[in-house]
Amino acid sequence: MTSDRYQKGIKKIQQLTQSPDDNPTGFMDIGEGFSDIAPDLEKYVVEFAFGDIYSRPGLDDKLKVLTTITALVAQGKPQIEMHIKTGLSVGLTPEEIVGCIMHLIVYVGFPSALNALKVAQKVFREQGITVTSPED
Amino acid sequence: MTSDRYQKGIKKIQQLTQSPDDNPTGFMDIGEGFSDIAPDLEKYVVEFAFGDIYSRPGLDDKLKVLTTITALVAQGKPQIEMHIKTGLSVGLTPEEIVGCIMHLIVYVGFPSALNALKVAQKVFREQGITVTSPED
Amino acid sequence: MTSDRYQKGIKKIQQLTQSPDDNPTGFMDIGEGFSDIAPDLEKYVVEFAFGDIYSRPGLDDKLKVLTTITALVAQGKPQIEMHIKTGLSVGLTPEEIVGCIMHLIVYVGFPSALNALKVAQKVFREQGITVTSPED
Amino acid sequence: MTSDRYQKGIKKIQQLTQSPDDNPTGFMDIGEGFSDIAPDLEKYVVEFAFGDIYSRPGLDDKLKVLTTITALVAQGKPQIEMHIKTGLSVGLTPEEIVGCIMHLIVYVGFPSALNALKVAQKVFREQGITVTSPED
Amino acid sequence: MTSDRYQKGIKKIQQLTQSPDDNPTGFMDIGEGFSDIAPDLEKYVVEFAFGDIYSRPGLDDKLKVLTTITALVAQGKPQIEMHIKTGLSVGLTPEEIVGCIMHLIVYVGFPSALNALKVAQKVFREQGITVTSPED
Amino acid sequence: MTSDRYQKGIKKIQQLTQSPDDNPTGFMDIGEGFSDIAPDLEKYVVEFAFGDIYSRPGLDDKLKVLTTITALVAQGKPQIEMHIKTGLSVGLTPEEIVGCIMHLIVYVGFPSALNALKVAQKVFREQGITVTSPED
Repeated sequence: MTSDRYQKGIKKIQQLTQSPDDNPTGFMDIGEGFSDIAPDLEKYVVEFAFGDIYSRPGLDDKLKVLTTITALVAQGKPQIEMHIKTGLSVGLTPEEIVGCIMHLIVYVGFPSALNALKVAQKVFREQGITVTSPED
Repeated sequence: MTSDRYQKGIKKIQQLTQSPDDNPTGFMDIGEGFSDIAPDLEKYVVEFAFGDIYSRPGLDDKLKVLTTITALVAQGKPQIEMHIKTGLSVGLTPEEIVGCIMHLIVYVGFPSALNALKVAQKVFREQGITVTSPED
Repeated sequence: MTSDRYQKGIKKIQQLTQSPDDNPTGFMDIGEGFSDIAPDLEKYVVEFAFGDIYSRPGLDDKLKVLTTITALVAQGKPQIEMHIKTGLSVGLTPEEIVGCIMHLIVYVGFPSALNALKVAQKVFREQGITVTSPED
Repeated sequence: MTSDRYQKGIKKIQQLTQSPDDNPTGFMDIGEGFSDIAPDLEKYVVEFAFGDIYSRPGLDDKLKVLTTITALVAQGKPQIEMHIKTGLSVGLTPEEIVGCIMHLIVYVGFPSALNALKVAQKVFREQGITVTSPED
Repeated sequence: MTSDRYQKGIKKIQQLTQSPDDNPTGFMDIGEGFSDIAPDLEKYVVEFAFGDIYSRPGLDDKLKVLTTITALVAQGKPQIEMHIKTGLSVGLTPEEIVGCIMHLIVYVGFPSALNALKVAQKVFREQGITVTSPED
Repeated sequence: MTSDRYQKGIKKIQQLTQSPDDNPTGFMDIGEGFSDIAPDLEKYVVEFAFGDIYSRPGLDDKLKVLTTITALVAQGKPQIEMHIKTGLSVGLTPEEIVGCIMHLIVYVGFPSALNALKVAQKVFREQGITVTSPED
């Protein structure tokens, strides 16, 4: 099970989440909760999503997570929360995360953006993060 | 009609598209083709989309266009083409644009990504752009 | 095949499209083009969509077609064109149709609205319709 | 901050929600809850969504809210609830709101319509509204 | 109200849900909860969805429910749960239901699949169902 | 490049498309047309989509392709055509393919179903396939 791609994927997740060696996947949901019904899911998440795609050169981690957040905002998926945390971990500033969601008003309309801002606000509050106003 | 926000919007479009003063909106579709049925559309595009949102601080132009491309790939909209051009104009590398589309496989599935790659390939060919392989 | 619901549906389509008795379904696509692979489709379109739902009291025809156009704009479906024609036939003004699409900018973003305006513009040009500017 | 467009937007919201002068935005969520992370959001909601688009001539308020409800049903957004309230406030009858959702079965399928009916039912019950049966 | 199509629909639901004669619709939501605001909804659900479409020859029940589950996963609708139950009732194995959701990773991305697996897991646990690992 | 997973994927594609050894991927688009901009795409398509997911036990090929077609109909993707061909190749009858699309009327509405039927009709005509009427 611990193929090269699996190890590469775990390493990538550890890097994205800045997690310690004894819990390298940290807050990332890699599907381990489905071991009773789809025990191979974790392998695909780690090997393909993180070992192949997140490890692909061409786009740096910050931009990869920005792309991820954008896709999830456009689709209205609950995974937005986890990936906002990943964004903060890879160095996206709270202003960039909010800026991305605000920017999407033009492309997905106000309701999707408002729903995503609510999630960002929750994460920022939990982490004691303050956001600089664009007018300052 | 030439409010401050309108002028700010035109300036932003000129900056995004690197267009000359005598054709400041360049290849950007600002809705001027609808002057017969919705003459106010252009105002909203220029003032709100570009004067307000694209001019908002917090996320730099490169990341704004990356966010735009991502949203359009997730939705499968034909505007992908124009915004890939904008991306190249603001300094996204072809590798970053391809990297963004490839990354989206994880979040929107293969068909949406393949359809978007076709558009990127068309733009790159028209502009004589070659893309460095991620394996080089 | 000519159940009461079928006849009610045909009558409803005739009323919506203002079609003559010898071609009561007029420009409406009722799925008759699929008689080789799904001969029962026409029955469902006429009986259920038009005999049941379009004939349902509570919302008048103008509002039903406005609702239809809105759903198709939100989904980006090619059927927008046919239903803009239906809208004009039931008395939606071109200003209302454009107003509906422009209004949707807030809820679905600019690209979906622009793509729909292109279709409206085509229909209006074919029918020699001019639209009064909202600023007049 | 109180530009002409902002004041126009507030006035429009007051008119849509029939709110008193000391609380002109009433039950409408204008994004003021995000003042800590996106203090400019409220400005865009009020100025653009309500000052520009909702104030645009061509489509009357009743039809604008019907269009809004339809878009939100098609997308499955939680904002349906607030806009059903707005619909009642601008004079859409409960029969028209239900009629709109029922009509959408043809265009978005049964599940989206059922999910929206649940929200309408909740609002009607809270407001003590009874709906006349289409068979009466 | 008890048209032939209605009776055909009820019979189909009974067959799909393996329900007793004194409660033929079993766990299937046929919209009866909306009798106060849309009393005709139940008729459309039973007559059209089940009496016409689910009763249509060409695709057997197992495949119809697999198609239903797939559509709901792609759309992220809460009705997934009820139709996973129907799937088990018509003879889809838990391995087929999980296999369908896992397969969709390729076409809708990981988040939609993970969200659907959570619902499948809940239903399986409630029913005491164990799933054979694809690696056994 | 010819990893075990790659060979497994190619073999799976050959089996799905019933292609000869000298052209094992047959009519399946595996992304080889993007070798200039994303040379690794083909690897992910073959290794992950076909070597991992399509090769996963639990759901047989017929049901996998039915799931694929359903997802593409729900999303309105052009890849429907290729996968209808795959469906015929793995033994889905034309009646089952039409039955699947007709069934989706209940879950995605009429327009998506009609657009998909047009594609099925094109494929059937090209292959000289006739469809038995559900009323026969």
